[in-house]
Amino acid sequence: MILVNGETNDRINITDRGLQYGDGLFETIAYRNDILEFLEAHLTRLLDGCKRLSISFQDKELLRTELLSLCAQLSRDSVIKVIITRGSGGRGYFADNNMTPTRIISSHPYPKYPNSHAISGIKIHLCKQTLSENKTLAGIKHLNRLEQVLARNEWNDPDIAEGLMFNNDNNVIEGTMSNVFIVKDNQLFTPKLNESGVAGVLRSQIYRLAKENGLSVKEKIFSKDELLSADEIFVCNSVVGIWPVSNIENTIYPVGSITQILQQALAQSKK
Amino acid sequence: MILVNGETNDRINITDRGLQYGDGLFETIAYRNDILEFLEAHLTRLLDGCKRLSISFQDKELLRTELLSLCAQLSRDSVIKVIITRGSGGRGYFADNNMTPTRIISSHPYPKYPNSHAISGIKIHLCKQTLSENKTLAGIKHLNRLEQVLARNEWNDPDIAEGLMFNNDNNVIEGTMSNVFIVKDNQLFTPKLNESGVAGVLRSQIYRLAKENGLSVKEKIFSKDELLSADEIFVCNSVVGIWPVSNIENTIYPVGSITQILQQALAQSKK
Repeated sequence: MILVNGETNDRINITDRGLQYGDGLFETIAYRNDILEFLEAHLTRLLDGCKRLSISFQDKELLRTELLSLCAQLSRDSVIKVIITRGSGGRGYFADNNMTPTRIISSHPYPKYPNSHAISGIKIHLCKQTLSENKTLAGIKHLNRLEQVLARNEWNDPDIAEGLMFNNDNNVIEGTMSNVFIVKDNQLFTPKLNESGVAGVLRSQIYRLAKENGLSVKEKIFSKDELLSADEIFVCNSVVGIWPVSNIENTIYPVGSITQILQQALAQSKK
Repeated sequence: MILVNGETNDRINITDRGLQYGDGLFETIAYRNDILEFLEAHLTRLLDGCKRLSISFQDKELLRTELLSLCAQLSRDSVIKVIITRGSGGRGYFADNNMTPTRIISSHPYPKYPNSHAISGIKIHLCKQTLSENKTLAGIKHLNRLEQVLARNEWNDPDIAEGLMFNNDNNVIEGTMSNVFIVKDNQLFTPKLNESGVAGVLRSQIYRLAKENGLSVKEKIFSKDELLSADEIFVCNSVVGIWPVSNIENTIYPVGSITQILQQALAQSKK
């Protein structure tokens, strides 16, 4: 099912700046057990992104209504994608202030991942494609995703569930579709995302769950060596939840106790 | 007029990866005096870009036929935009190899710029928005253009015709919609584009015209100070041709003799 500006429709005008320039943002929301998980956090991040890009869309209630109306027609768990673009028009890159943003809401079958991913962990690839640095775009989930496309297409082995990406200084930033955390000496760390990367909604939920469980998360810049020498590693996003990382290159990692505590806390927080 | 995959149509499916991820490329071609200017160079660059991004489109003759068929219906000078996307489908960022690329050809009114831009030069803005570095994407005209959108929206003064962008190391790279050249001690220089920027079709024509006129172009990394201390500065693209730069901040630049030689050579080469 697809709604474009509130109406059932699967097409947009080719003049839309989302297509022309990637001039927009998106969210990927899990719809499970009749609930749009972390909806408020997704909507808040989306509207924050609109502010960051000066896209004049701030109508959270309209989006919420359209999302609930679309989901009311779904008979199974789904992934819901919301795209907001700046709209059509402007002169070249220049955008008139009176442009009407486009909103696109679509539902997709929930991807089928093996249960073992969450239980015994996943094998990950270290991507050659780097993430570029740009403070203006860092953190937000905008539509300029060629780096992720190129990174994700570096492997075609179904046994590899995710790839980790580095910045140009060879520091770990995130997965192609996830954020990454490590545990070292019982301390949780995750990469700083002030220059590149997407600050995922599940990433911020991990901060909350960690705190509720007497843990804290430290943001830092960390190198490949620091990643490889971690005690526990996991990746997370709104659709897959938390996946422990069990294999990187030739190193094997245990599914550690902190990862398991957070997995249980996440499952509990959705009930 | 718009052709999508060869048929008159102004819409694309929202599943197209051009919208979803900016997963594609484009060209902007001048159609003047019944000629698609530098058509061969545009098509070659577009197909080179497809190779760089592993988009499986290489049918130059199909594009040429569709472009000529569209232009045959135009009664005035126009700007023709060609977009090639990877197509619809894949699983998330992952792209199946058997995807059918989407081709979109659209005509637009030729923008009206004052004649004085080409004769007495333009005033330019120095953009705060930087260009990020990524060797994989440098040089090609892909659809991830948020940096240009943000840069172009830093000013709304109609007297400013273009903005120059810098990389994160504060080196000059290009204009928001153009390439930049400077002349210093009778030598032409233009920024190296191996880490960011778009290697424009007119930029490569300038190399050819310079050579034909006993001049050469040196590519180098240059700072804002080197830009400001230039003897002549000009920007160029396929639609505007060559615009001398007459004002940057409080400095005034002459329309120099090398700029004029190249302008004349460009006009001559289109006859």
